[in-house]
Amino acid sequence: MSHPEREPDADTLAVNPSLTIYSPSGVVAKAAAIKLAAKRLGALGFDVQVDESATAKFQRFAGNDDLRLAALHRVAQAAPSVAMASRGGYGLTRLLDRIDWGLLADATARGTRWVGYSDQTALQMGLLAHTKTASWAGPLACDDFGRAEADGGLDEVTPDCFREAMSGELEAVGFRTEAGFDGLDVKGTLWGGNLTVLCSLLGTPHWPKVKGGVLFVEDVNEHPYRVERMLLQLHQAGVLAAQKAIVLGDFSQWKKSPLDRGYHLKAMVAHLRSVCDTPVLTGLPFGHVPTKVTLPVGVKIELVVQGRDVLLVWGD
Amino acid sequence: MSHPEREPDADTLAVNPSLTIYSPSGVVAKAAAIKLAAKRLGALGFDVQVDESATAKFQRFAGNDDLRLAALHRVAQAAPSVAMASRGGYGLTRLLDRIDWGLLADATARGTRWVGYSDQTALQMGLLAHTKTASWAGPLACDDFGRAEADGGLDEVTPDCFREAMSGELEAVGFRTEAGFDGLDVKGTLWGGNLTVLCSLLGTPHWPKVKGGVLFVEDVNEHPYRVERMLLQLHQAGVLAAQKAIVLGDFSQWKKSPLDRGYHLKAMVAHLRSVCDTPVLTGLPFGHVPTKVTLPVGVKIELVVQGRDVLLVWGD
Repeated sequence: MSHPEREPDADTLAVNPSLTIYSPSGVVAKAAAIKLAAKRLGALGFDVQVDESATAKFQRFAGNDDLRLAALHRVAQAAPSVAMASRGGYGLTRLLDRIDWGLLADATARGTRWVGYSDQTALQMGLLAHTKTASWAGPLACDDFGRAEADGGLDEVTPDCFREAMSGELEAVGFRTEAGFDGLDVKGTLWGGNLTVLCSLLGTPHWPKVKGGVLFVEDVNEHPYRVERMLLQLHQAGVLAAQKAIVLGDFSQWKKSPLDRGYHLKAMVAHLRSVCDTPVLTGLPFGHVPTKVTLPVGVKIELVVQGRDVLLVWGD
Repeated sequence: MSHPEREPDADTLAVNPSLTIYSPSGVVAKAAAIKLAAKRLGALGFDVQVDESATAKFQRFAGNDDLRLAALHRVAQAAPSVAMASRGGYGLTRLLDRIDWGLLADATARGTRWVGYSDQTALQMGLLAHTKTASWAGPLACDDFGRAEADGGLDEVTPDCFREAMSGELEAVGFRTEAGFDGLDVKGTLWGGNLTVLCSLLGTPHWPKVKGGVLFVEDVNEHPYRVERMLLQLHQAGVLAAQKAIVLGDFSQWKKSPLDRGYHLKAMVAHLRSVCDTPVLTGLPFGHVPTKVTLPVGVKIELVVQGRDVLLVWGD
């Protein structure tokens, strides 16, 4: 492993928290990624289990719907300290109407932290909508801990932030935003995740009706005009006006078009701000990028801005 | 023009219906496409006007929001027989909260047929939601009538169907579907359009709450898993169960992925049918493809299936 500079955390190793990698969404193309993730997570102090159907394959899914649903419920029954999805992709949408939300909430009550991003947003929002249960927006096993050295390897910041968040040491994350928000200080429920997945829940029973919250969103492969259309949907649906702040993460890997003629992410944000009274902050290090913070979803947080420094605080 | 086989329709020419091309959405990159469209629409028997700001440019839009909104309202006030959008792209979402829907409905009451597809779905659904006014899903000036010969030229079927629909001659369209729906005969409001744009209205005041209808959808550049996610959103929101039939048009120009492993449009439709009791028919010739029918939106129609032949009837 590549953290020779960090001393092992004796307390964390002593507790030896259990972590199960499971696959509720897209197919795991390379089992090696799960093995590498398990090794790295083990080195980080977790007692890692890989769910028995984590590498199952059915079309573009990690097993058919019944199999993935069974895996999700099996993990909930086992209630490990951390339940980490192997990857995102697409698949949870198919399960939403069939998930035993009470079972997942019970696991959380027994100490389980559900972790992931991208397609996991559907699970996290459903859990919040049906049971008001908190979860964690954070790394995925394959995409983060399973990234081969040839593809850039393991990020330096992501594992530390994740480990500290899981152990309860982490009580805040900070980032730099644009000028203009100095002095902003709001409290509310932190919620959100992948914007496309989030919007795909609007109008369904799996949509958490959060008022007075802090909404964070990110996306990948979505042109700014598509991001704008989704944010305007949330605006027109009254969702943005009901929040105390909107926090934008990374919007990565979109392709420019010759038709853009100067329209880009900044122009999108400028338009959003022109129609939306809720403060829209940029700069959250979260999304489909190697460096991502781990954030509690569905819990009360305080967002404080000093100058251009933003602090999201969930500890006392 | 390229219709030597068709005799001029004396009635249509005598009436000389007015048609205005305007731009509520994306920028028109080449003014030549509008000129070509005007020429071809003129040859089809329309008295064509091009709105003064049809070729305006602001970033990726056909003029800034104020300009496009003014164009839309100007066309409504003039109330031509046909109001045809130059192209789709993205832009109407920005205007939805500001459109004077009553003004557009008044134009329709005076005889105006609002026509287009893609981004125009937002206008058509908004018109239906706010005023229960009918419109037409049909060709766009640039994309259909303005297509250069080098890019495939004007389709053979699209102009005839469009002209007949606008003159009131057309009272039904037919297409072939898969086996298994023989004998289906339902009546309801025909509505829908572009699936992404349709879903972007869910939860907003611009969503038409149609019950007992026939919902048609199409899309472009959307992988089947994304189409499925949107259709499952409509399913989970109770929209599909409230319809008498779902009709799928063309889903074109999506790119396969090595992760698909046999998942494609057919697998998507199969899954949708496994969770949705409403009949899901495929084969409607409508979408981002050259050959498209012109369909009345927001009007009562009858859908009749004989064998594999489907007829959508709106005339008496």
